Amino acid sequence: MPTYRLTVRYDGTDFCGWQRQKNGPSIQEALEDALGKVAKQPVICRGAGRTDAGVHALAQVVSIELPRVLPDKALVYGVNNHLPDSIAVMDAQLVEDDFDARHSSSGKLYRYQIWTGKIRSPLHTRNHWHVGHPLDLDKMRQAAAVLVGRHDFRAFRAADCERQTTVRWMKRIEVTVPPSDPEVIHIEVEGTAFLKHMVRILSGTIVAAGRGKLTTEAIAELLQSGDRSKAGQTAPALGLVLVRVDYGRREGP
Amino acid sequence: MPTYRLTVRYDGTDFCGWQRQKNGPSIQEALEDALGKVAKQPVICRGAGRTDAGVHALAQVVSIELPRVLPDKALVYGVNNHLPDSIAVMDAQLVEDDFDARHSSSGKLYRYQIWTGKIRSPLHTRNHWHVGHPLDLDKMRQAAAVLVGRHDFRAFRAADCERQTTVRWMKRIEVTVPPSDPEVIHIEVEGTAFLKHMVRILSGTIVAAGRGKLTTEAIAELLQSGDRSKAGQTAPALGLVLVRVDYGRREGP
Repeated sequence: MPTYRLTVRYDGTDFCGWQRQKNGPSIQEALEDALGKVAKQPVICRGAGRTDAGVHALAQVVSIELPRVLPDKALVYGVNNHLPDSIAVMDAQLVEDDFDARHSSSGKLYRYQIWTGKIRSPLHTRNHWHVGHPLDLDKMRQAAAVLVGRHDFRAFRAADCERQTTVRWMKRIEVTVPPSDPEVIHIEVEGTAFLKHMVRILSGTIVAAGRGKLTTEAIAELLQSGDRSKAGQTAPALGLVLVRVDYGRREGP
Repeated sequence: MPTYRLTVRYDGTDFCGWQRQKNGPSIQEALEDALGKVAKQPVICRGAGRTDAGVHALAQVVSIELPRVLPDKALVYGVNNHLPDSIAVMDAQLVEDDFDARHSSSGKLYRYQIWTGKIRSPLHTRNHWHVGHPLDLDKMRQAAAVLVGRHDFRAFRAADCERQTTVRWMKRIEVTVPPSDPEVIHIEVEGTAFLKHMVRILSGTIVAAGRGKLTTEAIAELLQSGDRSKAGQTAPALGLVLVRVDYGRREGP
């Protein structure tokens, strides 16, 4: 059956996350419903990243199989007609049959967004964590420098994460201030694969460093000990954006 | 009575505009209700700009009189406690008694935001106009260059605008692409005063130029003739943001 690679953008505020669940509307469900109407038969979506409730995506990648070949444009516009304003298929491409959005992926880029103003900002509420304390950029960058690279990240995962191997490679962790919005901080995290809640715990840890609550020594120690209780809090889901999913040859250190 | 100058930020999506109205919730009403709770008596708000339904503000300026002096911080945090997430007082300052947010203002900066992608973008829906047609930046800039300056803008106002004088000074009209978001176009309009719907009609006209539907000659002619029917459409309210209100000596050409 023809396989398509869809690029999907969403505002995750009103959803219980990517994955279909019983307790609320999911992105997957909305997308499968819309695709089903266009394909006129049930369609199953495979997402590259299982984003949590409230997490957003600039470019989630989704693989689907359709009963027949459809022109890319017809597919995009047709499906978008059946989706709410908060979800859209930005692009569709016919790909090799063996393409799987999740397993073919060679890496992902996430961005964690922080509003640093003292007062909450109504134009940032939906997709920025309002920390409400001063953050020291240098300390955040020093923390990021300790965390980047290939490490055992077992201290940086949700309690119910069941992965056997907890070594992951973070290719880049960068702390930046967008010139157009100087009261915002972005933490960009690029890696080959992630554990459950990993980017949110990394971000919470970098924020704790920026507040002077965790030294770089403590963070290095944390990577050694693997003690989750000593890492930063899990940063709120609403600040997280899945920016890009990469495909291609897998690199590794 | 002590007079305060408040800086107020809001996401206008769910409001019928700045001004108190019978047909829906207004920013003014929400703010007056919250201030009334803190001041323990009714408070009247004067806004610098009467933003339309759906228009946002990064920094609307509001003047109020309070029965007694309150510490700025207590005022800000107290009022924000009673406001919905979509509105916040970002700053409060005790000012001279004769300060009036509207009449003391010497100018305003508005930004009109456009999403230029072919497909609608769920992360831009709330505050960008999705034009859905290719826009020529050079043509938009040429149109802006014709409109900037001191002109009779009677072709650029709502049908029910009752102002006697229609000459206004646009100090700057700039068309830019934010480097962080290359599929977005901003039209920044800075002027001493505006007619009803003026920034939205200016933006609609600049977009029409960008689509090749209005030449710079036609726009120059429009300023001469004052014929509203020949200007561009009134751009949708949701793309407009009141960025800044200026106070100080009034300049003029």
